[in-house]
Amino acid sequence: MSFYHKNGYLYCEDLKVKDIQDEVQYSPFYLYSLAQVKANYTAYQDALKDTNAIIGYAVKANNNLTLLKKLSGMGSGAVLVSGNELKLSLAAGFNLKRTILNGNGKTLDELALAVEHGVLINIDSEFDLKHIQQTTNQLNTPANVLIRINPDVNPEVHPYVSTGMKNSKFGIRNEKLNWFLNEIKNDNLLNLVGVHCHLGSTIKKVRIFRDATEIMVDFMKIIEKDGFSPHYLNIGGGLGIDYDRSGEDIPSPTDLIDSIRDILPEHITLIIEPGRSIIGNAAVFVNRVTGVKTNGNKHFIVTDGSMAELIRPSLYDTYQHIEFIEPVEGKIDTFDVVGPVCESADFLGKERRLPTPSEGTGLVVCDAGAYCHAMSSNYNLKMSPPEYLVDGDKLTCIRRVETLDDYLRLFDV
Amino acid sequence: MSFYHKNGYLYCEDLKVKDIQDEVQYSPFYLYSLAQVKANYTAYQDALKDTNAIIGYAVKANNNLTLLKKLSGMGSGAVLVSGNELKLSLAAGFNLKRTILNGNGKTLDELALAVEHGVLINIDSEFDLKHIQQTTNQLNTPANVLIRINPDVNPEVHPYVSTGMKNSKFGIRNEKLNWFLNEIKNDNLLNLVGVHCHLGSTIKKVRIFRDATEIMVDFMKIIEKDGFSPHYLNIGGGLGIDYDRSGEDIPSPTDLIDSIRDILPEHITLIIEPGRSIIGNAAVFVNRVTGVKTNGNKHFIVTDGSMAELIRPSLYDTYQHIEFIEPVEGKIDTFDVVGPVCESADFLGKERRLPTPSEGTGLVVCDAGAYCHAMSSNYNLKMSPPEYLVDGDKLTCIRRVETLDDYLRLFDV
Repeated sequence: MSFYHKNGYLYCEDLKVKDIQDEVQYSPFYLYSLAQVKANYTAYQDALKDTNAIIGYAVKANNNLTLLKKLSGMGSGAVLVSGNELKLSLAAGFNLKRTILNGNGKTLDELALAVEHGVLINIDSEFDLKHIQQTTNQLNTPANVLIRINPDVNPEVHPYVSTGMKNSKFGIRNEKLNWFLNEIKNDNLLNLVGVHCHLGSTIKKVRIFRDATEIMVDFMKIIEKDGFSPHYLNIGGGLGIDYDRSGEDIPSPTDLIDSIRDILPEHITLIIEPGRSIIGNAAVFVNRVTGVKTNGNKHFIVTDGSMAELIRPSLYDTYQHIEFIEPVEGKIDTFDVVGPVCESADFLGKERRLPTPSEGTGLVVCDAGAYCHAMSSNYNLKMSPPEYLVDGDKLTCIRRVETLDDYLRLFDV
Repeated sequence: MSFYHKNGYLYCEDLKVKDIQDEVQYSPFYLYSLAQVKANYTAYQDALKDTNAIIGYAVKANNNLTLLKKLSGMGSGAVLVSGNELKLSLAAGFNLKRTILNGNGKTLDELALAVEHGVLINIDSEFDLKHIQQTTNQLNTPANVLIRINPDVNPEVHPYVSTGMKNSKFGIRNEKLNWFLNEIKNDNLLNLVGVHCHLGSTIKKVRIFRDATEIMVDFMKIIEKDGFSPHYLNIGGGLGIDYDRSGEDIPSPTDLIDSIRDILPEHITLIIEPGRSIIGNAAVFVNRVTGVKTNGNKHFIVTDGSMAELIRPSLYDTYQHIEFIEPVEGKIDTFDVVGPVCESADFLGKERRLPTPSEGTGLVVCDAGAYCHAMSSNYNLKMSPPEYLVDGDKLTCIRRVETLDDYLRLFDV
């Protein structure tokens, strides 16, 4: 593990997080471990070493430019959900031939960018196909497309991160598959190269991936019978990580790939779209304790970080582990860990057994690499927090803090 | 009303919203009516015309600089929840003697700013008082303070916007009032000028405000008996608006003030902290329809706006009315109105009976002035949307769209 405790202090690789906090001055901030990112990426490479595959990092999980450059440098592909993510991926040096554009509401501008750069495009619906055709015709440029199938497999996760059920907004209506195939067949500029599904996120059972893969393989057979030669099988992302720290067995990339290896057709290229499992446990969100208060029955640790910088607990009612970065000797009690934002939705954790900290104590929200900074807001005029990367004993700022002047610039009209 | 339909088109004051959408080009965007802001503010002025009062606009609801300037120009005070909001209020021309700093986690830097500028400060807890004392001592400058009481009155709203119940993170522990009074008495630099409470938000019954006011008046009496002369009674904000459009009677500012007028002590200055009821119904969030799709039973209108620009429906499971800005003749059906963001939490409205629109049709989410842009994020690398203000037949851009270059600037480190 790249984050570990020694003598009561939290370390990130070779550095004591408390020393980093003192050096950074600004609080709160995000802190990443490059070794952990590499380990997570390598786990996918190892799992796939005997398989033709594209690891498509899901940029939406975390779009820090330095982290993207590191991932593209390791050979990762990228999964994109907007034109801006495509532009950022270009800047990060990704080979766009190994990127995929997803989404149920791609705009014509976004599709034009994707077609120009040879990005693989997932067809999500009738209107999406029509827009892709409009774009390829206008640019007179061919496109490689996949069809997003809705496998209707229950990922057994929070409904907000479930994306492959029948009532999801994503994917085609499977009964209409033939209509899509005919449309593509009659279009000289469209090249059907594969099928795609995405079940959801925070999935903890490989059986769920296997069920979906079986269904997808069947769809590939139907498509082949219709005269196509799809060679990409894109099973999406969604592998969970150990947020709970409950000792529960979270499947590894190898568990995932091994569970489907025997049913993968020959000569295909597997595409997987990990985001959370690459970047999630590679960061902590570092706070300072502003104070401790009680309303009688209920006790609160008030931090300087909030739902503005990290909204997952509030939005998804999700657990992220919270711990101190230094020895704390106070009485152990049950606390809600809350930020300074003026509403009751502002909490980082509820009912946590923790020792009572003194003011200024460093506190981290763990597993804060994915869908944390990426979903941050300026609520209560809190500024976008800075990000730091540790590589061994080296600390680098990889995103500076937003300033009020940055914010005010948008009012200069 | 400043937003109304004529011949099937939505108007904002004298302008057709469809014409504005064509002119603006960028989509989605927020559109405000100055007349509506003025009417909402005037309703509070009228309600309070025979009462010594400060109308403290809650900046956290919407911090657009132009809107803040308009409100300060009308004589509004401001309620602040961060140092950045204080700085912005200075830029907007608010008289800071008529502003209040709230919050359960004020930092020392924020308190220093507040003390320097003579902002009224609400004491939220023991540690908050200690920090205020630390600050006034360090600056050797006095401060006018109020005590935030927790009246334990149920506002009957979503738990996330309920802030005055016993288990809330806000306010002092009432049993400890005497401790606070003694501390203040023994501090030459603290001047106890009043009491504060805030019940929550989206409140629809004036009885709830009256219950709280009665409790607060009793607290004032206790404080007076202890030798203090509190003259500010701050009952917070929280008046609901007619999100539902169900014909339900939402109390007006006059209803609210009339309901407590007979129990207000003489010679006090009432402070109220409206945010939503000043700015909420003064804006719409303007989208274009990207397409319409179905998964069989379930139908979707896909828009270019999303949870990134407007997260209230997803975060609070809240209803905001959705309508088209132009005549739509398609078959009436039940739709989820969803954005392009790649997760199932991304919806603007669920199960809405609407005619089937064609692509490009303008669609608005109504009552989008409060806690909408203020809570927006860059999720999926969506850029912060622009804001436009209508004044009669005049359209002004009051916040330009964020660009990817703006975003990338933070990576220049």
